[in-house]
Amino acid sequence: MTVSDVAQLLQIECSDSNESTISGINTLRDAAKGEISFLSDSKYEKELSSTKASAVILPASKSHLLPDNVVALISEEPYLMVAKLSKSFAKPIQSSDIKPIIGENSTVFPTAHIENGVKVGSGCTVMSGVYIGADVLIGDNVTLYPNVSIYRDCVIGNNVIIHSGSVVGSDGFGYAHTKSGEHIKLYQNGNVIIEEDVEIGANTTIDCAVFGSTWIKKGSKIDNLIQIGHNCIVGEHCILVSQSGLAGSTTLGRNVVMGGQSATAGHLSIAPFTTLAARSGVTKSITKGGVYSGFPLMEHKLWLKLQAKLAKILQ
Amino acid sequence: MTVSDVAQLLQIECSDSNESTISGINTLRDAAKGEISFLSDSKYEKELSSTKASAVILPASKSHLLPDNVVALISEEPYLMVAKLSKSFAKPIQSSDIKPIIGENSTVFPTAHIENGVKVGSGCTVMSGVYIGADVLIGDNVTLYPNVSIYRDCVIGNNVIIHSGSVVGSDGFGYAHTKSGEHIKLYQNGNVIIEEDVEIGANTTIDCAVFGSTWIKKGSKIDNLIQIGHNCIVGEHCILVSQSGLAGSTTLGRNVVMGGQSATAGHLSIAPFTTLAARSGVTKSITKGGVYSGFPLMEHKLWLKLQAKLAKILQ
Amino acid sequence: MTVSDVAQLLQIECSDSNESTISGINTLRDAAKGEISFLSDSKYEKELSSTKASAVILPASKSHLLPDNVVALISEEPYLMVAKLSKSFAKPIQSSDIKPIIGENSTVFPTAHIENGVKVGSGCTVMSGVYIGADVLIGDNVTLYPNVSIYRDCVIGNNVIIHSGSVVGSDGFGYAHTKSGEHIKLYQNGNVIIEEDVEIGANTTIDCAVFGSTWIKKGSKIDNLIQIGHNCIVGEHCILVSQSGLAGSTTLGRNVVMGGQSATAGHLSIAPFTTLAARSGVTKSITKGGVYSGFPLMEHKLWLKLQAKLAKILQ
Repeated sequence: MTVSDVAQLLQIECSDSNESTISGINTLRDAAKGEISFLSDSKYEKELSSTKASAVILPASKSHLLPDNVVALISEEPYLMVAKLSKSFAKPIQSSDIKPIIGENSTVFPTAHIENGVKVGSGCTVMSGVYIGADVLIGDNVTLYPNVSIYRDCVIGNNVIIHSGSVVGSDGFGYAHTKSGEHIKLYQNGNVIIEEDVEIGANTTIDCAVFGSTWIKKGSKIDNLIQIGHNCIVGEHCILVSQSGLAGSTTLGRNVVMGGQSATAGHLSIAPFTTLAARSGVTKSITKGGVYSGFPLMEHKLWLKLQAKLAKILQ
Repeated sequence: MTVSDVAQLLQIECSDSNESTISGINTLRDAAKGEISFLSDSKYEKELSSTKASAVILPASKSHLLPDNVVALISEEPYLMVAKLSKSFAKPIQSSDIKPIIGENSTVFPTAHIENGVKVGSGCTVMSGVYIGADVLIGDNVTLYPNVSIYRDCVIGNNVIIHSGSVVGSDGFGYAHTKSGEHIKLYQNGNVIIEEDVEIGANTTIDCAVFGSTWIKKGSKIDNLIQIGHNCIVGEHCILVSQSGLAGSTTLGRNVVMGGQSATAGHLSIAPFTTLAARSGVTKSITKGGVYSGFPLMEHKLWLKLQAKLAKILQ
Repeated sequence: MTVSDVAQLLQIECSDSNESTISGINTLRDAAKGEISFLSDSKYEKELSSTKASAVILPASKSHLLPDNVVALISEEPYLMVAKLSKSFAKPIQSSDIKPIIGENSTVFPTAHIENGVKVGSGCTVMSGVYIGADVLIGDNVTLYPNVSIYRDCVIGNNVIIHSGSVVGSDGFGYAHTKSGEHIKLYQNGNVIIEEDVEIGANTTIDCAVFGSTWIKKGSKIDNLIQIGHNCIVGEHCILVSQSGLAGSTTLGRNVVMGGQSATAGHLSIAPFTTLAARSGVTKSITKGGVYSGFPLMEHKLWLKLQAKLAKILQ
C-alpha cells in the first residue's frame, strides 16, 4: 500500500503524489521511515517537526509544521482516519512458517495450542487449553496454567507464573467515533511484555498496546480478575489486589500497591511506593508516594478525617 | 408432561383435570398454547386476561382473573413452583442430530468444540478451545478468540469479535427462595442475541435470558471483565468500559456510555446518549440523557459541587 | 529434607542438630509430627506450647515458649523464611499414577483434560476444555461447563454446577516481602472444598487455601466474576452477586447476601443472615445480622439518612 493508496482509501487530500510503500502505523515519536503517523491531539504538535514517518494524517492548519520530506494527508478527523486505515495493517492471527521451538525439560499438554514462530524456553509447563499466539517468546521455568490465552507477539520472561483463564495481549479498547455515533475499531498492533518473576492470577486481562508495548516489570504480583489497559506500564515489584483496574496508558512506579477494587483513570503517572487503599479511585497523577484513599482520591489520613466528619453529621 | 402431571409434581391444586401436554414455561405475555405461565408479581396481573398459556400458576385469590380456557394451578408461592418445575423443561446440553455447517473460508482450530445444529458463516475464525453450543447461529466474518464459550441457542451477528475467555449465554442468576432459606434454581431457557459489528473484550460474561433473549444491539463495544445480567438489552453503539456491570433486565438506550467499574441495578431503563462516569451506580431509571456520576447517582455537575462542599467540611 | 537441611537452606540457626524428615509446612495449630511451622504474628503465640510440629521458625525471643521436643529455627523474619521454604514443599502439578475413574452415565468431552488420581461420580458432564487437576474428587450429577479449571486436590460435592471459565483452586495471593521490596511467593498447598448443591457462575475465581481448605458450604449460589480469596469460608445458602469479592480468610455465616460489586476485607467474620447492599465495603467483622450499606459500612437505614443529609448540603 502506497501513500497515494492510503489517501484514496480514506478519500482525503494528499500533499504530494507519492508511491513509497507504507508498512504500518505508529506514533509521531516512534514512527520509522515507511510508516504513517497522525496528529489527533495538539499536545503532540511539537513532535511533528522531528517525526521520521513518511506521511502524517493531520488537519490542514497543522500541515506547515511537517518537515519537507513528510507527506501531509489532510483530515479534520485524523483519529477516525487512522482507525479506518488500521484494519489494513492489522496483523494476521497466523503468520510465520517457522515451527514452534520448545526448550529442554518443558512439558506441553496435548490440548495446548502453540502457533508458529513461538519459542518456549526450558523447564516450562504449558498446560491444557493454553493458547500461545504467533511469534510469542517465552523464557525459562514459566508455568502457564490451563486455559491461559497469550496473543501474538507477546514476550514472557523467566519464572513467570500465569494462572488459569488469564488473557495476555487481547486488543486494547480503542475506537474512533463518527459524527453519527458509530465506533470504528483502531486495530491494536502492539504487544505485552511481562518481565521475569511476575505472577498473574486467574481470569485477569492485560491488553496489548495499540502501538509499542504494555509492560509489566519484574517481580510484580497481579491477583485475580484485574484489568490492565493498553499501553500501561506496571513498575517493578508492584502488588495489584483482586478486581483492581488500570485504564489505558497509565504508569505505576515501582512498589506501588493497589488495594482490592481500586482503579485508576487513563494516562496517569503514579509515584513509586504509593499505596492505594481498597476501592480508591485515582483521577489525577500522583507525584509523591504515600497512602491514599477514597474517590475522589485524598490522603488516607484526610479520608479518615472526612469519614469522622460525616459520622458527626449523622448525630 | 401434562398439566395434571405438573400439578402432581408440584403437589398443588389444579382447577381442571387436564391432559393437554405442556411444552415449556414462559411469561404471561409471551406464552403460547401448550406453555405454562405464572403470576409472581402483581404488576403483571393485567396480563392474566389475555395470556395464551394453557395453564398458569398463581395464588387462589387471582384465579378468577384467568380466561375460562386457562387452567389455574393454585399456589401461594408461584415463583418457587416455577423454579421447581423449570428443571423438567431445562434444555439438554446436546440435542440436535444435525452436524454443524461451516461456511466457506472459515477456519476452525482443531481443539475448538462445535456442537450439532450449529451454523457458522463464511470468513469466520474459530480459535483453539472455543466452545459453540447446540444450535448456535454465527454470521459471517466472526472472530472467536481462544477459549470463548458460547452456550446453546445463541445468535452471533456478522463481523462480531469476541476476545479470549468471554462467556456468552451462561445461566442467569435466578433462584426462588424457600421459607427455610434454600435457593431453588430457575433453569434459564432463553438465549443471547449479539448483533453485527459488536466487539466483546476478554473474560466478559453475558448471561442468557430466563425466557426470551438477552440482547446486544449492533455496533456496541464491550470491554473486558464486564457482567451483563439475564434479559438485559444493550442498545446500538453503546460503550461499556472494563469491570462495569448490568444487573438483570436493565435496558440501555443507544449510545449509552458506562465508565469503568460503573454499574446499574436490575429492571432499569437508561435513556439514550446517557454517560455514566466511572464508578457511578444507578439505582433508578434515567429518563433524560446527560452525564451522571456517583453513588447514589446524580448529575455530574452536582457531584462535582458535592465534592467541593465535602472538601470544605475538611477545612 | 531434614530439619538440619531446612536450617541450612534458609541459613538460619537451629536449636538442635536434628535429622528427622520434614514432610511439609503447616500452621501451629494444625501441624502434625514431621511438619514445620512458624510464628509470624504474636496473636498465635499461645499456640506454641501445644504445637505438634517437629520444628518451628520463630524469633529468638520466643523460642523458650516451645515444648522441649520441638526444634526452634531462629529468624527475625519467620514469614519470609516460610515463603522461601515453601517452594521445596510445593505440590507437583502431576503426581499420582492412578488413572482417573469416571462414574456411570458420566460424559467427558474429548478435549477435557483429567489428571491422574481424579474420581468423577455418576451422572456428571465434563465439557470441552475443562481441566481437572490431580487427585480432585467430584461427586455425582456435577456439571462442569466448558473451559472450567479445577486445580489439584479440590473436592466438588454432588449436584454442583460450575459455569464456563471459572477457576477453582488457583493459588492464593500470598507473598512475604523482603526489606528491599521484593515479594517472595508463599506456595499454596491447600485446596477448595465445594459442598453439594452449590452453583458457581462464569469466570469466577476461588483460590485454594495456603494450608487447609477454602470452603464453600452447601446450597450457596455464586454469580459471575466473583473473587473468593484463600482460606475463606462461605456459609450455607449464601448468595453472592456478580463482581463481589472476599479477601482472604473471611468467613460468611449462613444465608449471607452480598450485593453486586460489594466486598469484604480479609480475616473478618460476617454474621449469619447479613445482607450487604450492592457496592458496600466491609472492613470490620459484623456480629449481628441485618442490612448494611456503604463504604465505610453502616446500617442501611443510617446510610439512607446520610444520603439525605448530603442532599441537603447541596441545597
